[in-house]
Amino acid sequence: MEYELYYWPGIQGRGEFIRLALEDTGVPYDDVGRRSEADGGGVAAIERLLEEPGHHLTPLGPPVLRHGDVVIAHTAAILQYIAPRIGLVSRDEGSRLRAHQIQLTVADLVAEAHQVHHPVAASLYYEDQKEEAARCARAFVRERIPKFLGYFDRALDSNRSGAGKWLVGAECSYADLSLFQIMAGLRYAFPRAMRKHELRFPRLCAVHDAVAARPRLAAYLASRRRIPFNEHGIFRHYPELDPPSRAAGSPKRPARAAKARRKV
Amino acid sequence: MEYELYYWPGIQGRGEFIRLALEDTGVPYDDVGRRSEADGGGVAAIERLLEEPGHHLTPLGPPVLRHGDVVIAHTAAILQYIAPRIGLVSRDEGSRLRAHQIQLTVADLVAEAHQVHHPVAASLYYEDQKEEAARCARAFVRERIPKFLGYFDRALDSNRSGAGKWLVGAECSYADLSLFQIMAGLRYAFPRAMRKHELRFPRLCAVHDAVAARPRLAAYLASRRRIPFNEHGIFRHYPELDPPSRAAGSPKRPARAAKARRKV
Repeated sequence: MEYELYYWPGIQGRGEFIRLALEDTGVPYDDVGRRSEADGGGVAAIERLLEEPGHHLTPLGPPVLRHGDVVIAHTAAILQYIAPRIGLVSRDEGSRLRAHQIQLTVADLVAEAHQVHHPVAASLYYEDQKEEAARCARAFVRERIPKFLGYFDRALDSNRSGAGKWLVGAECSYADLSLFQIMAGLRYAFPRAMRKHELRFPRLCAVHDAVAARPRLAAYLASRRRIPFNEHGIFRHYPELDPPSRAAGSPKRPARAAKARRKV
Repeated sequence: MEYELYYWPGIQGRGEFIRLALEDTGVPYDDVGRRSEADGGGVAAIERLLEEPGHHLTPLGPPVLRHGDVVIAHTAAILQYIAPRIGLVSRDEGSRLRAHQIQLTVADLVAEAHQVHHPVAASLYYEDQKEEAARCARAFVRERIPKFLGYFDRALDSNRSGAGKWLVGAECSYADLSLFQIMAGLRYAFPRAMRKHELRFPRLCAVHDAVAARPRLAAYLASRRRIPFNEHGIFRHYPELDPPSRAAGSPKRPARAAKARRKV
């Protein structure tokens, strides 16, 4: 029974976390949105799935995975479903719970990364909310990126069998693949800010590199199947949101630190 | 083995979804954050849990559930863990998957409801981002509330054994309790807008009422254990964000509908 992934064809987006898991394990899958519409794929196929009445819980949007009669939406739920089946997490409840919590934290980070360029409304263009986005980006870069990276770094510590190299258990799991994607995406979107933040988190850079070097993933990342980051996805590079640190974005300027303390 | 809930003592917030599940089933639990600090509870106990090094996956924030050696963060993961154990979802994989997807959609709605009053940064006061919040609220009320309510309404249709009354299976599940909380919260935050939206979704109002009438929950809601909605939680009532419909907020004004079509 094949895995069918329904996701927008032109972006990595949330679907990429699922693509990485399937590519890393070499499990055959049908990336339906990237097949031609003449071949029954494309955006038309996604829209048909979202409008199918009554047969299943109709998702609000992709990614959606279809596996036989099972139709699942939400990236974290999809990964939770497929990972034990394709060997990307141990089957014991503790490992599965741990990986799922990490993936839900990834989902929170993804939502906040999207909010940076769409603080007012997802239905408006970035150009219609640029001023708000500039304010949002400053806070995201200064407060949220280090907070999330600190979480993943502590997760390495608390995984007793991971030797500081993996997030769940003694082997690479889908949580590590997702951390790779987060690091890659943040570097693409905020290269200046990340050069500074990364200095504090060398082990997260090591996870990124170890995942990128896995043979099947290395082949995938070098292939045309890996869609380049672009300004339609989650991680977008707008230079004005990642300015030189004297202008903005440095996590250490005293004026900003004072402002951050105002949180209730 | 008792369930220990760690959540901020002064708000319903994300913790309320877990309180509702535990209250509805009459399962004893320790609401640690609401015990006095002298008694080992309060905010101090939450902060200790968040700073405990190395023993478990340290969460970014509450709600956190402790159940013996198990420590779980993320509302949806907590509910997924406790619900089959306390009888708030069937144990078959299909029901659990369905309820979890609905709860993850609830989580998305909760995040967007929070973004309405904090579009720029969670670390700034609402008063520091009021203008952005006003723009964000217009889009949320006009586009997102009906989109989410439409999702829950279709979910009633696709549940073949629910007779249009329950979201998962033939009985009330935690997904229904969460829908109750969503309806209650949106009504508190946006009473004017909700009076209009509700006309289109009478079955969601019926789920709200059926949940509120369940004996244990009715007792809970009438008790002092139910913290009133307030302007520190997720659902906040700021009258300027829920203006009379001639000024803003009507879902049917042509100018707004045209703007909504601009989404990519």
